[in-house]
Amino acid sequence: MNRMDDILENVAIDAWVKAFSRAPGQVNAPHESDAELIELPGDAGNLLAITIDTVAEEILTGLYQGPYTMGWVTVMACLSDLAAVGADPLGIVVSVSAPPGRDGSFAESAGRGMEDACRSLGVFILGGDSNMTPEVSLTGCSIGIVPKSAMLTRRGVQPGDAVFMTGRAGAGNALGLVRLSGLPDEYFPESNYRPSARLAAGRVLRGRATAAMDTSDGVLTTLDQLMRLNGHGFEVDCDWPAILSEDVLALCDRTGTPYWMMLAGPHGEFELIFTAPATDAEALSEALHEASGGLGAEALPEKSGDLKPIPIRIGTVQERAAITLALPSGRRIDIDMSSLRNLLDTSGGDFERYLSEFRKTGGSWGLE
Amino acid sequence: MNRMDDILENVAIDAWVKAFSRAPGQVNAPHESDAELIELPGDAGNLLAITIDTVAEEILTGLYQGPYTMGWVTVMACLSDLAAVGADPLGIVVSVSAPPGRDGSFAESAGRGMEDACRSLGVFILGGDSNMTPEVSLTGCSIGIVPKSAMLTRRGVQPGDAVFMTGRAGAGNALGLVRLSGLPDEYFPESNYRPSARLAAGRVLRGRATAAMDTSDGVLTTLDQLMRLNGHGFEVDCDWPAILSEDVLALCDRTGTPYWMMLAGPHGEFELIFTAPATDAEALSEALHEASGGLGAEALPEKSGDLKPIPIRIGTVQERAAITLALPSGRRIDIDMSSLRNLLDTSGGDFERYLSEFRKTGGSWGLE
Repeated sequence: MNRMDDILENVAIDAWVKAFSRAPGQVNAPHESDAELIELPGDAGNLLAITIDTVAEEILTGLYQGPYTMGWVTVMACLSDLAAVGADPLGIVVSVSAPPGRDGSFAESAGRGMEDACRSLGVFILGGDSNMTPEVSLTGCSIGIVPKSAMLTRRGVQPGDAVFMTGRAGAGNALGLVRLSGLPDEYFPESNYRPSARLAAGRVLRGRATAAMDTSDGVLTTLDQLMRLNGHGFEVDCDWPAILSEDVLALCDRTGTPYWMMLAGPHGEFELIFTAPATDAEALSEALHEASGGLGAEALPEKSGDLKPIPIRIGTVQERAAITLALPSGRRIDIDMSSLRNLLDTSGGDFERYLSEFRKTGGSWGLE
Repeated sequence: MNRMDDILENVAIDAWVKAFSRAPGQVNAPHESDAELIELPGDAGNLLAITIDTVAEEILTGLYQGPYTMGWVTVMACLSDLAAVGADPLGIVVSVSAPPGRDGSFAESAGRGMEDACRSLGVFILGGDSNMTPEVSLTGCSIGIVPKSAMLTRRGVQPGDAVFMTGRAGAGNALGLVRLSGLPDEYFPESNYRPSARLAAGRVLRGRATAAMDTSDGVLTTLDQLMRLNGHGFEVDCDWPAILSEDVLALCDRTGTPYWMMLAGPHGEFELIFTAPATDAEALSEALHEASGGLGAEALPEKSGDLKPIPIRIGTVQERAAITLALPSGRRIDIDMSSLRNLLDTSGGDFERYLSEFRKTGGSWGLE
């Protein structure tokens, strides 16, 4: 139970991985870090981090409709992987595939999204490739440097560790809900979805957090993957106003959508989830706040009297390999993410069925 | 005349480039090298080379039909860019987009193509991303290291320099001709198209060649781009049996296709074209032969009594910005590649029209 290969996406990745010989200078194993980490021949103290991400499914399904969003997310997706390994970015290359006729205005707007995302984090696009294809597909590859002595991966989670998140979640799934349900744009405008790679936070976490992973596939998918990799589970404190963004809470209230769906859906927000000894929580929180004021750093949301401070403590690592939701009612329920994670593959692109199966799975866990 | 922006592809790239701020640590300008070159913070003696290439158009148009070829070329395309800047490769990441149902056997075969290409050159795939899309699109991003003191770019061509090529050309356009004309596979089997990135050659050329660029878009496109960048042209010695592969010559003879089309077409073979002082030709040739026997090096074709040795000298740099073909008949003609290079954009995907316009352009140059 709780094996990596219960998840169809892991199986699909392994089908590729098994074809390839492992590089001698590579220090991470498959699945075990958000970015690949390799030795640098001329620099014994540092590792090179590299990662590649394609934004295509989100465009094909109509999740992203504005070229600006497509460009923005392409940059943030690959930088977020660098953040999760605590790397200092060196730059990005992009490969842009788009229909020929669309080129002028599309390039202008998608390029601006990429550039704005880069400027917000002090990172640069170094170059790229362009292709003419019927459908838009954007790929970003980012590289960075991380001190060998401060490696940060998805492995290292210890029972008793506190679990934190660098910001409030749910925007990705909120946009997903609006698109899949065909709700009008104003319920959750696409422009509300502007995730920011937590690069400054990652630099603080390296050498201090026991493990980290970004929430690109949603919060509960991230925790599920961390559980499968580490053999320990999580108890999640479902204090919704602390965990979910205000606009996400408002969407749920307006549409009668249960809050848990905003954590369980597959479209994330590029926050970092990390684990650390509970005794380090306060010092780490302070260090993260300091870092967010630095040059080229992303702004972390402000502390609020009513809300838990950033980083938000969302739970605790438990010995047994299960994800336990501690609900506001006081109930605790174990959930099994495998069927939800596989639903995108098994529902065959039928979104109505996907949404209804999604809710049904929550029902089988005792959620509504 | 002969401006960079006479070429629609350059204009399309510039539409993206102009959206982006330039990175402070980047040492190459746009268009001026096959891979991007940036400073490494912890290693003052070396530059990091990075490049990204998507193989999608070649699959959509039916040029590549076997997943093995698709995988092989994805790896070679991005490694070839490292070869052209003389970099020692550190590794590759790949992003694979393919239809869901196809995943098992497609991944097996495309993955094997990638792995075989890597093994032939001693390079490793570090990781990647996978997506489900209706059409296949494969992206490779490769990184490498190059000594700062031995930078090799597309700039530096000097009048009087000898022009060389690392191997015989034409396989890419031969495959293109067979596909576009709907000829049976046996005229030029897809398996004859197995280009190899000239990494070992690139390492020899750095610090010795005045400029280098790979022939990924065909020989005459490469020379045309070098001319626009350097302001000097080329006289090309059209000694067909020396320049074109045997199987390419055979295809031309069998189908009555003029040889020049195998240099002028847009689908290349990933040889390197480089320029060097004519006085260095012999020493460089010897060094290239030695390198090809080294560990992880590609084999250069054997010398043959009747054929010019590898590297093949294909011509000379001339002061004026024109490409002059010195034909076997003794005739010399100037050709203007701009309309041919733009033909893929202006023919709107109509291949019959493309081929007929292509031949017509040659006719306007005085070729048949």
